[in-house]
Amino acid sequence: MAYLLLHGHLPDDTERVRFAQDLAGRRALSRAALAIIHEAAAANAPPMDALRMAAPVLSLGREENPLDDAMTAIASFPTIVGAYWRIRNDVAPVPVLSDIAHAAHYLHQLFGVTPSAERARALETYLNTVCDHGLNASTFAARVIVSTRSDVISAITGAVGALKGPLHGGAPGPALDTVLEIGTAERAEAVLRAKLDRGERLMGFGHRIYRVRDPRADVLAQAAQRFYTSDGDRSLYELARNVETTALRLLRERKPERRLDTNVEFYTALLLHGLGMPSELFTPTFAVGRVVGWSAHCLEQLRDGRLIRPQSTYVGPTALHYDRGSTRAAV
Amino acid sequence: MAYLLLHGHLPDDTERVRFAQDLAGRRALSRAALAIIHEAAAANAPPMDALRMAAPVLSLGREENPLDDAMTAIASFPTIVGAYWRIRNDVAPVPVLSDIAHAAHYLHQLFGVTPSAERARALETYLNTVCDHGLNASTFAARVIVSTRSDVISAITGAVGALKGPLHGGAPGPALDTVLEIGTAERAEAVLRAKLDRGERLMGFGHRIYRVRDPRADVLAQAAQRFYTSDGDRSLYELARNVETTALRLLRERKPERRLDTNVEFYTALLLHGLGMPSELFTPTFAVGRVVGWSAHCLEQLRDGRLIRPQSTYVGPTALHYDRGSTRAAV
Repeated sequence: MAYLLLHGHLPDDTERVRFAQDLAGRRALSRAALAIIHEAAAANAPPMDALRMAAPVLSLGREENPLDDAMTAIASFPTIVGAYWRIRNDVAPVPVLSDIAHAAHYLHQLFGVTPSAERARALETYLNTVCDHGLNASTFAARVIVSTRSDVISAITGAVGALKGPLHGGAPGPALDTVLEIGTAERAEAVLRAKLDRGERLMGFGHRIYRVRDPRADVLAQAAQRFYTSDGDRSLYELARNVETTALRLLRERKPERRLDTNVEFYTALLLHGLGMPSELFTPTFAVGRVVGWSAHCLEQLRDGRLIRPQSTYVGPTALHYDRGSTRAAV
Repeated sequence: MAYLLLHGHLPDDTERVRFAQDLAGRRALSRAALAIIHEAAAANAPPMDALRMAAPVLSLGREENPLDDAMTAIASFPTIVGAYWRIRNDVAPVPVLSDIAHAAHYLHQLFGVTPSAERARALETYLNTVCDHGLNASTFAARVIVSTRSDVISAITGAVGALKGPLHGGAPGPALDTVLEIGTAERAEAVLRAKLDRGERLMGFGHRIYRVRDPRADVLAQAAQRFYTSDGDRSLYELARNVETTALRLLRERKPERRLDTNVEFYTALLLHGLGMPSELFTPTFAVGRVVGWSAHCLEQLRDGRLIRPQSTYVGPTALHYDRGSTRAAV
């Protein structure tokens, strides 16, 4: 998927192997990146802040080159998040491996064990699903930055900062919290009805762009089903499906005029939770996937794009005189 | 000026003193920020890269708060650039001072001596002149980032990355290079004519927005005049005026249909050069000024703004089928 987005076509076998080797060779972090990760952990910074501090350091000691910068960022993000997570939890980071695929390597960096094929495949499906999504705010921020002919590491650093905002990637836990709060299928309707009665939004439903069921929700629901089945305990998956069906029925009943449907967040939370990630890791894991799309957008912007510099319309007072002696502006 | 942009009105005497004290109290860098500055210097990174690595570290150990983040960034940028510059040139950074104004403190951080009132005032005029300029690419990047309800440090970090691009703030030297290349007033016409004959752009003239003389050029020209006069050697200033007059005459003659006029870059270069800065410091010094505008835009965006997430129009192939066995997409 990363090759397709960066190069515009699927790789043949040789290209795929070379690409994977190239990525694997870029996984290790510099001393400087590790040092800032340690500083962030010592200050107990949120993981997205740690990623935003380590990402800009990826340019050190290398010549600027768009594709090279992109490959280094894509390869390094799992190591940054994994190393940070371990250090903050008082466990030593694990050395990078080069004989294991990208998603599996991220899980290894986080948990220190080689994941099963099913776990690696579930995360791979998630990363593929979220790797790009048009001109979302983080991708757009990256394009604005690189539109000045700045470098891809600068653009990706800006994008990490945008993604951490709660209106974008920064509030991914609540959909799962609702499922966990409900606990058993029988309670779904009562809990959800009570939420709607209190005027609360149902988290995991509705999207700024989609007025239909988010197509990514289907892919992730199937991945979650496979993964939870392979794991031997489907109960949380079954509960989530039940909560989804009930929520959609109630939303149709309450707001027939609005088309609120399941969004990507609902099954993301279920899947990442099943992989052993606390909700604090959901947004950084989103970044591990989305950095591929940011990179591809940067390459496209550098190839075809112009400076993104909107004009603004002044809507303030039409005549503003400052009197040196007064404390307020006189209009 | 910073108070006006952040608070929307000029300060009275008490507010001004308190504001200056608040800023002065935020000048010192954390150990983590200094550590990354040392790493950047060891790798001989460009100063804008060093600033982009140190800026995101400003959030460490503090609670997120928009105004607080802005004040810390504004106060810290001169220290970051000054410390970086000294370390990269193998001189120890100087301790921060709290009894000296903002612009003077930046010069002290760079050169280790308290500047004359004229030098401090010249830099102050420059910083005031460039502190804001509507929705330029770096400011827009900051607004996109903070529009997700992310934090101001993230937004400012992204803005630094945008500013470093050569289409924005990242190519400020050439206007001065032309003046220095000309050397004496008699050579101005011949050198400039030769450049125009070769189809070269005259650096320091023309602007994406202005179709008239950039109003900032006048302010900076006056500041340069005062400063070079006070310094006792006006020869470079006189030469620059001469080059400007000649360039404008030739541009009118060659391109009467285009309105190419002096832009902010021309006198910026003259002024900062006169203050002892090599051209490598021009863009970081631009950032020291513009961080005030970035901050004010972020505060406004957080107060009134919505998520900035444009839609895009797909202009690629209308049906794209990937055949697993083939190496290229079949359209």
